[in-house]
Amino acid sequence: MDFQLQDYDPINGLKPSENCAVVGICGKDPVFLKIYTSLRTLQHRGQEASGVAIYDNGKINAIKVDGLVHEGFKPYIEKGLTPKGIVGIGHNRYSTAGMKNITGAGPFLISTAMGDMAISHNGEITNYEILRDELKELGVPFVTKTDTEVMLNLLARTIRQRGIKNGIKSSMEILQGAYSVALMIGERMYAIRDPKGFRPLILGKSGNDIIVASESAAIDVVGGKVIRDVQPGEVIEIFNGEITTLFTLRSQRISHCMFEYVYFARPDSIIDGTEVYNSRYQLGTNLAREAPAEADVVIPVPDSGRTQALSYASELKMEYSEGLFKNRYSERTFIMPGNMERDGAVKLKLNPIKSVVNGKRIVLVDDSIVRGTTMKRIVSLLRSFGAREIHVRIASPKIVAPCYFGVDMKTRDQFIALNKTDQQICDEVGADSLAYLSIEGLIKSIGMDKKSLCIGCLTGEYPVKILGEKEDVQTTLEF
Amino acid sequence: MDFQLQDYDPINGLKPSENCAVVGICGKDPVFLKIYTSLRTLQHRGQEASGVAIYDNGKINAIKVDGLVHEGFKPYIEKGLTPKGIVGIGHNRYSTAGMKNITGAGPFLISTAMGDMAISHNGEITNYEILRDELKELGVPFVTKTDTEVMLNLLARTIRQRGIKNGIKSSMEILQGAYSVALMIGERMYAIRDPKGFRPLILGKSGNDIIVASESAAIDVVGGKVIRDVQPGEVIEIFNGEITTLFTLRSQRISHCMFEYVYFARPDSIIDGTEVYNSRYQLGTNLAREAPAEADVVIPVPDSGRTQALSYASELKMEYSEGLFKNRYSERTFIMPGNMERDGAVKLKLNPIKSVVNGKRIVLVDDSIVRGTTMKRIVSLLRSFGAREIHVRIASPKIVAPCYFGVDMKTRDQFIALNKTDQQICDEVGADSLAYLSIEGLIKSIGMDKKSLCIGCLTGEYPVKILGEKEDVQTTLEF
Amino acid sequence: MDFQLQDYDPINGLKPSENCAVVGICGKDPVFLKIYTSLRTLQHRGQEASGVAIYDNGKINAIKVDGLVHEGFKPYIEKGLTPKGIVGIGHNRYSTAGMKNITGAGPFLISTAMGDMAISHNGEITNYEILRDELKELGVPFVTKTDTEVMLNLLARTIRQRGIKNGIKSSMEILQGAYSVALMIGERMYAIRDPKGFRPLILGKSGNDIIVASESAAIDVVGGKVIRDVQPGEVIEIFNGEITTLFTLRSQRISHCMFEYVYFARPDSIIDGTEVYNSRYQLGTNLAREAPAEADVVIPVPDSGRTQALSYASELKMEYSEGLFKNRYSERTFIMPGNMERDGAVKLKLNPIKSVVNGKRIVLVDDSIVRGTTMKRIVSLLRSFGAREIHVRIASPKIVAPCYFGVDMKTRDQFIALNKTDQQICDEVGADSLAYLSIEGLIKSIGMDKKSLCIGCLTGEYPVKILGEKEDVQTTLEF
Amino acid sequence: MDFQLQDYDPINGLKPSENCAVVGICGKDPVFLKIYTSLRTLQHRGQEASGVAIYDNGKINAIKVDGLVHEGFKPYIEKGLTPKGIVGIGHNRYSTAGMKNITGAGPFLISTAMGDMAISHNGEITNYEILRDELKELGVPFVTKTDTEVMLNLLARTIRQRGIKNGIKSSMEILQGAYSVALMIGERMYAIRDPKGFRPLILGKSGNDIIVASESAAIDVVGGKVIRDVQPGEVIEIFNGEITTLFTLRSQRISHCMFEYVYFARPDSIIDGTEVYNSRYQLGTNLAREAPAEADVVIPVPDSGRTQALSYASELKMEYSEGLFKNRYSERTFIMPGNMERDGAVKLKLNPIKSVVNGKRIVLVDDSIVRGTTMKRIVSLLRSFGAREIHVRIASPKIVAPCYFGVDMKTRDQFIALNKTDQQICDEVGADSLAYLSIEGLIKSIGMDKKSLCIGCLTGEYPVKILGEKEDVQTTLEF
Repeated sequence: MDFQLQDYDPINGLKPSENCAVVGICGKDPVFLKIYTSLRTLQHRGQEASGVAIYDNGKINAIKVDGLVHEGFKPYIEKGLTPKGIVGIGHNRYSTAGMKNITGAGPFLISTAMGDMAISHNGEITNYEILRDELKELGVPFVTKTDTEVMLNLLARTIRQRGIKNGIKSSMEILQGAYSVALMIGERMYAIRDPKGFRPLILGKSGNDIIVASESAAIDVVGGKVIRDVQPGEVIEIFNGEITTLFTLRSQRISHCMFEYVYFARPDSIIDGTEVYNSRYQLGTNLAREAPAEADVVIPVPDSGRTQALSYASELKMEYSEGLFKNRYSERTFIMPGNMERDGAVKLKLNPIKSVVNGKRIVLVDDSIVRGTTMKRIVSLLRSFGAREIHVRIASPKIVAPCYFGVDMKTRDQFIALNKTDQQICDEVGADSLAYLSIEGLIKSIGMDKKSLCIGCLTGEYPVKILGEKEDVQTTLEF
Repeated sequence: MDFQLQDYDPINGLKPSENCAVVGICGKDPVFLKIYTSLRTLQHRGQEASGVAIYDNGKINAIKVDGLVHEGFKPYIEKGLTPKGIVGIGHNRYSTAGMKNITGAGPFLISTAMGDMAISHNGEITNYEILRDELKELGVPFVTKTDTEVMLNLLARTIRQRGIKNGIKSSMEILQGAYSVALMIGERMYAIRDPKGFRPLILGKSGNDIIVASESAAIDVVGGKVIRDVQPGEVIEIFNGEITTLFTLRSQRISHCMFEYVYFARPDSIIDGTEVYNSRYQLGTNLAREAPAEADVVIPVPDSGRTQALSYASELKMEYSEGLFKNRYSERTFIMPGNMERDGAVKLKLNPIKSVVNGKRIVLVDDSIVRGTTMKRIVSLLRSFGAREIHVRIASPKIVAPCYFGVDMKTRDQFIALNKTDQQICDEVGADSLAYLSIEGLIKSIGMDKKSLCIGCLTGEYPVKILGEKEDVQTTLEF
Repeated sequence: MDFQLQDYDPINGLKPSENCAVVGICGKDPVFLKIYTSLRTLQHRGQEASGVAIYDNGKINAIKVDGLVHEGFKPYIEKGLTPKGIVGIGHNRYSTAGMKNITGAGPFLISTAMGDMAISHNGEITNYEILRDELKELGVPFVTKTDTEVMLNLLARTIRQRGIKNGIKSSMEILQGAYSVALMIGERMYAIRDPKGFRPLILGKSGNDIIVASESAAIDVVGGKVIRDVQPGEVIEIFNGEITTLFTLRSQRISHCMFEYVYFARPDSIIDGTEVYNSRYQLGTNLAREAPAEADVVIPVPDSGRTQALSYASELKMEYSEGLFKNRYSERTFIMPGNMERDGAVKLKLNPIKSVVNGKRIVLVDDSIVRGTTMKRIVSLLRSFGAREIHVRIASPKIVAPCYFGVDMKTRDQFIALNKTDQQICDEVGADSLAYLSIEGLIKSIGMDKKSLCIGCLTGEYPVKILGEKEDVQTTLEF
Repeated sequence: MDFQLQDYDPINGLKPSENCAVVGICGKDPVFLKIYTSLRTLQHRGQEASGVAIYDNGKINAIKVDGLVHEGFKPYIEKGLTPKGIVGIGHNRYSTAGMKNITGAGPFLISTAMGDMAISHNGEITNYEILRDELKELGVPFVTKTDTEVMLNLLARTIRQRGIKNGIKSSMEILQGAYSVALMIGERMYAIRDPKGFRPLILGKSGNDIIVASESAAIDVVGGKVIRDVQPGEVIEIFNGEITTLFTLRSQRISHCMFEYVYFARPDSIIDGTEVYNSRYQLGTNLAREAPAEADVVIPVPDSGRTQALSYASELKMEYSEGLFKNRYSERTFIMPGNMERDGAVKLKLNPIKSVVNGKRIVLVDDSIVRGTTMKRIVSLLRSFGAREIHVRIASPKIVAPCYFGVDMKTRDQFIALNKTDQQICDEVGADSLAYLSIEGLIKSIGMDKKSLCIGCLTGEYPVKILGEKEDVQTTLEF
């Protein structure tokens, strides 16, 4: 929580990894610019810092930059100071704590007796603090407080002891939580996904390049085609143009994060066989069935509620309209660090369209509510523009418990829904009515088996044992 | 064209002012932060540079910054280095030529025998080069090549000779073209709009503050209420809490820029009595009536074609879907300087949603086409994702002639529609069918009299005499 | 005093020009890099901002940068964004007021009916405020509050009325104070020096290049040879490889600034026939004769007192030693803006050499004292390192009055010597004895006629009429 | 040589540590600003990057910055983002290879089973590559390629196995080469100097603060008093206001670097009982005795040859004069990275004083010659200013072999003196005569026993076994 090493900001600490973007490309030509371009398409998964690590001539070197991919790498690209190697990985970091900090950015690199190793990681290792202490006891020094460094050092150790295949397997049997990883051991690349498959990881091909990435857009943008998802528990070796599954460590219970479908992923992504756009469309449809409202117009909270509002209106044959204009030059609220920014941004970000709102009974649709502060302000804003009634409809269930697997929802007492009835929440945001989608509705919309999803933040029961939290009894890992 | 003075970039010149944002606030408390916030809401009207000029204690001082309002002023706000005065003006500069350049940014200031003067200008003075030469002959030195400096020096001269009211009038009788202006003469502020009313200018009030701005969002954001539009040819004095119309210089022919409704302004703005969102909705409706298409789904080019696509689908009772995902972290194509950025950005910016596109007959709706390069790429992108048919529908007429009044469409041979039939354009972008809205449909959608709009870029006939161009015969200025 | 226009810093104003560096080169190949290099050698004359203006293809363009020449122009040179013209001028700005500010930096450019004009100016126009008001009355707008802009506009006006030669002459008859100028009227360059010759200006040649500069080092560094000083009142046209004296406006009384010899200029410069190093050597010699001290060692305040201390010791056959180490990485005290920096810097800047100081009777020699704060701290520092006696010797007379001609000594009550006896000053700095060189000693050391020097800051009598100050009766200007 | 990890610059590698600055302060109040100020006085020992690590509340955090101490830390100090702890260490990095790089900057931090550890190191571990490989074999991962990381990990390992005292001792028995270190283990600080005492390390006190630093100026500047040098091989614990010598690991042979006295250290420093200024004075005196020259004037190469030239002149009763003016705004040649900078800087840096040089027979004194390029240019410059004869005198012996202990003289074939006679060198630099001080003269000047100095770069025989080099037989380490 409060550990910090080699950090430029002496005041604020770095948290363990959150939801991030992972890319790896193994080709026959220099891959730097392709990785850079892929990272740009995954910018929504992390805006704080980025990095690219490239193998060349026996060594792995990295460039790490602050801020947006485009801006950070600009001077390197302009001056031609980019690595020439043909195998490399990239990472975007999403962080909500503290000042911007390049040190915590991935990829993380170490030099070992086996050569150089590098890792890009998306997810969150729930037992990393214990593992960190154990590795320290074994003489491993740490230079950051990230779970990524712990994972890489654990991998280095078990691989050295047992070889690549068995070593990765041993590490996976020890690591708990969410991890979708691109790993380099010298020039060999590995795609690793935790046995429960919390976070997405997808495999593609473009000419001679084999690509692994968090989402398919990163493959599309470099002209590639998706091959398939990396399976939960699967470890794939990518070397010399060959894709080889080393093994798949099966779990009794898959736990894909439902929030990727609700909010986090790009709508054009197809994750574990399910298109995100289609899930969102179904979320709106099912929300309409469960919680119809009598009103004049359905409007979304842009951009997050748009697809759901559209299908909500379509299902109920209501008018759909874009009643809130979103200022293109204000950043995505959810992803901005710091409370102050989150509050100040709302005012500049959204403005009602008078003709759509004035005198109207409105259904206001959004994808989810975490704290409720933005929703409260939007309701108040719509009223000040003459809205007659406002019926809030949320296309996902109440969030009542923290996420331990990579989404920045950690603090229970920030959740507006915690220990409140729908009516209490409705009163707090100042709406005329308010309804959430049910958990059943969510599962039906995503179109997966309930046992394939992690819905811990909705139920408080988690697919992995978390100290002080309830475990989802169906979900014990078999090994 | 190629003149340059006091310019940090020695290679590229500055063009005369383009479409920009203007703000002026006159209050009883320090206005800097209010102007800053207003400028942020008008960021879409100019992202190259910004400035704020404040009157304090007998003098006017200015801060000018590069880039986005938010980023440029950050160090000044953080260090508390912001002026304390209660009257001030602000400006966002939109530029398409050359490197970023703070010198050309507004507001422009001069010190004269009458005291300090400052001006924020949106529009384009068509006869500024002649006026500049004439003023030089009269001994006026110039430090930039902008039309704004010419206008301010002309105003300074005529005001000195004839007093404020008659002086402004004299200048307006000489100035040709588009100008919506916030002017400061010491602590007195003036809102000036050219007699044809090309560019918007709106008046509002918030507590003790009187506000003039390019669009109403700038008034909303500081908690104000719109009073009314500044009338074409109207000159308003704002001083000491009083709003006084000095005079209104009438033109035989009003010429509101149709492109503000089609693309440029925010949809929540109400300009000259017409809500932009509503105009865009009507543009889609009338496009549907004029050019229906048999297809499975209507999809917009986001974000510019969304409202029009929605009403197009609604009018024809077709399915509407967001079939193209827009990457939030790539900037608005149209407003980015440089050809390279324009091209490179398309690839990163848009990605199709497979389930919406694959095997479908698609109506693709956008607000307008200038060069056609982006449209060409989108059509090709949709085909590669399995679109069966693509019917392009454009919710405005063909652009065939340059704009001389502030929109960055200067070079005839860049227009895809120049000397081409619809079928030729259709072939060039690779669509199955293609149709534009008619000029009549455009006028009906905006809901104004044809004689109140400037449609020079659609007809090649202009409401002001332009050397080498045809004049719209109905539009001779009476004075 | 407190006027400010077009200024990035809204809090602090810009003062009129102070002692600055001027360079002009007229050649047959691109001159930008030569001007840049010359400016680097004159960095001691101004570190706040720099600029280069180049004539090319009918126009004059400028690049202006903040801070040191080397750092400011670096990105332009690296990216190859430097002008290609073969005639140009440069300027380093020295400023002591406010934050760094690029707008006040020279060269100043205007576009007029005669074409583009640019000026680099070193000195200070004493009647610029009146002239500025008069020009304003004549309709000339001002965009800065500098005397440089006043001078250029006056020149533009009189040249237009009377042609170049008579126009410059007319302006010079009106302008009062100090000015050494490089002027460009289109591609023609003019070197102008005020009739009293306050500030240096020197002419040189290097291959095809004709060079005018504040000091000869700027000529040496580009491989050139000095031709001669520009004479007081002389106006030289440099065009097409020809050097032509247009006229020389003679004054009854020359007034070379004595402080150039004492402190400001580089020791390797030869100004008006007198080598600065030699003058400084003589200042020490004469100081020794006037104010010998019985002591063990003579030590200089580095770097400013070194030459004088050396000749002082040599004259008295005393031991000379470098008893104070100067940290190379702390900047020159006198030239740093802000009181805080001046104070904090002393501590980091100097440290005594124990073996030289401990138990010794020391003669401490410096070139001059303005405020005395640094001297006070040095005396205290030496005592803390065991100095037995400290005899302060200053190789110039007491400064008791402001400079109005370009040296940053404006505020009487900051002068330690004002209304104090030598003993009082000695007590204040904490020395055992203290002596200044006499005015006669100064004049003898520089080796010029008393009537050829401005010693206004030593006597309070000035060679130009200054409101509220005594005039040196011998010095009325004849025209 | 060419290994690189976690490095922002993908093209150039980082070399092992070179001569650097080390500071550590243990007090009762926050120490950050004191460490910062101390580092400023030691800026001459490293200008590439700096860092400060502070213990606070169970953890050690660091701030690392690029470039000069003053500039790098400015934003942190301005925003108040500085650590509050009362124990901390600082480091300035001197580097000659590649682009600026913050990652290689000290202090280096790790988190271990014993808590956080941090190290600041000056020197060069000659066997670090072997140790790095051995530690890798033991499972220690490396994130940089510096010798500092190797040293810290070795210390962490041996301390964990044997306790602090014996652990440090064990590490010192393994480490070869030069190291003057400030080490933190949690809140305990240790000053460690290698048994041969290559690099300086000095202990002081200021009120409650105990200070360890590379040179005494760092103690003086915070108002402290020197206690004594840390002895070769001594390990001192500084904790809770107590200074305790844990042990002293004696070597048969002390090896203080002679180059600290000749060039590197500040003249005001007293290192191992010998004042640097006094050594330099003696170097000049002995040079005069060994190699007198018949000439008119002795001039130094400023600033490095000044003291030696002064005593040379004094010894021979010759005239001493500052015949070369050094531009204050060009950086120290020796310490600037890159060949280009080194060459370009000479031209801008030095200019002769005509009256001192013209027609004169000159003795030109410098402290040392490494490559000879600068000397060559100075001789040529002096001739072009009319010098009649130039007699080069170097106040140290010929450098003929690389330094392996922290001075950036690595490449034999860059040394001008390699395999050349004095006459050949004289011819190459273009002088009339040239002489070096003898090794005996050097030793006598420094005033130490020959067996107490490392003169490996003068003889090619080193006090530590270096692969491929001769060992100084007198110097075998006893353990």
